[in-house]
Amino acid sequence: MASGGEFDFIRTRLGPLTRNHAAALGLSDDAAVLDPPEGCQLVLACDTLVAGVHFRADDPPETAASRAMRSNLSDMAAMGAEPLGYLSALTWPRDIAPDWRDAFVAGLAAEQDRFGVPLLGGDTTSTPGPMTVTLTLIGSVPQGAALTRGGAAADDDIWVSGTIGDAALGLAAQEGEAGAPAELIDRYTRPESRLELGRALRGLASAAIDISDGLLADAGHIAETSGLALTIEAGDVPLSAPARTWLAGAGEGGLGRLLTGGDDYELLFTAPPAHRAAIAALAGAHMPLTRIGRAEAGAGVVCRDASGETLKIDRDGFTHF
Amino acid sequence: MASGGEFDFIRTRLGPLTRNHAAALGLSDDAAVLDPPEGCQLVLACDTLVAGVHFRADDPPETAASRAMRSNLSDMAAMGAEPLGYLSALTWPRDIAPDWRDAFVAGLAAEQDRFGVPLLGGDTTSTPGPMTVTLTLIGSVPQGAALTRGGAAADDDIWVSGTIGDAALGLAAQEGEAGAPAELIDRYTRPESRLELGRALRGLASAAIDISDGLLADAGHIAETSGLALTIEAGDVPLSAPARTWLAGAGEGGLGRLLTGGDDYELLFTAPPAHRAAIAALAGAHMPLTRIGRAEAGAGVVCRDASGETLKIDRDGFTHF
Repeated sequence: MASGGEFDFIRTRLGPLTRNHAAALGLSDDAAVLDPPEGCQLVLACDTLVAGVHFRADDPPETAASRAMRSNLSDMAAMGAEPLGYLSALTWPRDIAPDWRDAFVAGLAAEQDRFGVPLLGGDTTSTPGPMTVTLTLIGSVPQGAALTRGGAAADDDIWVSGTIGDAALGLAAQEGEAGAPAELIDRYTRPESRLELGRALRGLASAAIDISDGLLADAGHIAETSGLALTIEAGDVPLSAPARTWLAGAGEGGLGRLLTGGDDYELLFTAPPAHRAAIAALAGAHMPLTRIGRAEAGAGVVCRDASGETLKIDRDGFTHF
Repeated sequence: MASGGEFDFIRTRLGPLTRNHAAALGLSDDAAVLDPPEGCQLVLACDTLVAGVHFRADDPPETAASRAMRSNLSDMAAMGAEPLGYLSALTWPRDIAPDWRDAFVAGLAAEQDRFGVPLLGGDTTSTPGPMTVTLTLIGSVPQGAALTRGGAAADDDIWVSGTIGDAALGLAAQEGEAGAPAELIDRYTRPESRLELGRALRGLASAAIDISDGLLADAGHIAETSGLALTIEAGDVPLSAPARTWLAGAGEGGLGRLLTGGDDYELLFTAPPAHRAAIAALAGAHMPLTRIGRAEAGAGVVCRDASGETLKIDRDGFTHF
């Protein structure tokens, strides 16, 4: 449905992003034609980002591109999938500066090459509203190997990768909040995509999700889909050094803010205790893997503070102390 | 990335649209997990529609849903693909009426059932701007059987399905233009999706495209991708009875308007003359198939009027007489 001057943009700017992948047909056709890997299932996900909602309207274009790609890749990671390529639906404001647009595409290019995910197709349109980008990621997993939210069993451990709450603090810092640690801004603008971890967890994890809504809310999704209760020890939740420093001066609501802050894109997963050593071996200097609780019969998420007190969590994911 | 009250909407409104397809995982996971059909290639396309750009902001929700689904299915038709399912990225204005939203989803449901295409996943977000919907269609073709824009050969016939220019006149009628035939409004609001024709053309057509940008512009895409010239006899282009009546009173620019009007979503395709009888046999009472010209060595699109005069076509697809 691209029209007019969009054809030039697609050919000259987006064309190179296919990296000559045969499936893209040079972006000159109605659709991409992809050979699915033998013996695999396809993993399909799309995420929409709207300027002013999912990234700041005054974020640099590279940040918008990075967040779009990484939030989508994070869904692949959570399923244990190998991304094969993506479709981009780019909806530009009519008055967008050509430089901004080119920088956004350059940002996409840098991200896709970092993760080895070529552009296979898409659509380019204009809007009287804010910039809106929907990426559709196409990935694959060996037959039956996909991690889902629904596989947790009673007595499974609950694990999390990386550190929690950093993206929320990074966003606060970018928005100029007093005391929010500026060194965490990168965790908001360029969140990790735990693709390698996701693939390594096939056969080890029983359920997985990426943390986009916040640790406690996403734990709730596993609890609901698996039909279990998840008990999380707040004192065991891994925090970065800047987050610990911030928390020391943040007062009583600080911990709740970290536990419910979105956009970390770390993996939250469950696994049988028998897999503890195998999972611990996957951790690295830049990616701690931490046990933070246990799944059991019941429903919902219980979060206990360091003194064993139960924290109250309302349905929107906010914690009241 | 859905948040807050969106979860209820996804479960109660979108959940039923999966029609319990296993790949959708009940819309409760990060991605869909689809078994690709044996021996097939995947066909992947997405199209974005923005309220006020690709449908009228005051169109009924069913029209928006219908146009979104059919413009996307049309890409599947043009590739000769069998649609397997779709992902919906729905971006709602913050002040959208719940009734409008529910009617849009009901419209999607009616469309997907008509064409047998279940919802497999997606994303639901909000925007301060106009409603924006991106559907990603996932289809399949037998290995090597996809129709593309690049396969036309010199001396191939040029064919078109249905009648041309009706959607442009239907839109004009809906916008209250004097003389535009109201009986064509349906052709704008509910354009045909030529899925069955597309599949039947595998092995018969050498190249194909769906007419979204207008007959001449889309012929230009085949000409460019195939590296050929396409000569179209304007007098042979099939017109509906209301369009013929309108044309008789429209003056000199009328024909050009029909030949460049978008959104018909009919199929334009090329085929060797040896396949004429086989292709003619695919036509039906509600779907004429008409030969309108010939491919030859060269470049670009030449359009001749009934008296053999060459019509001048500028690069934006508009025709000057």
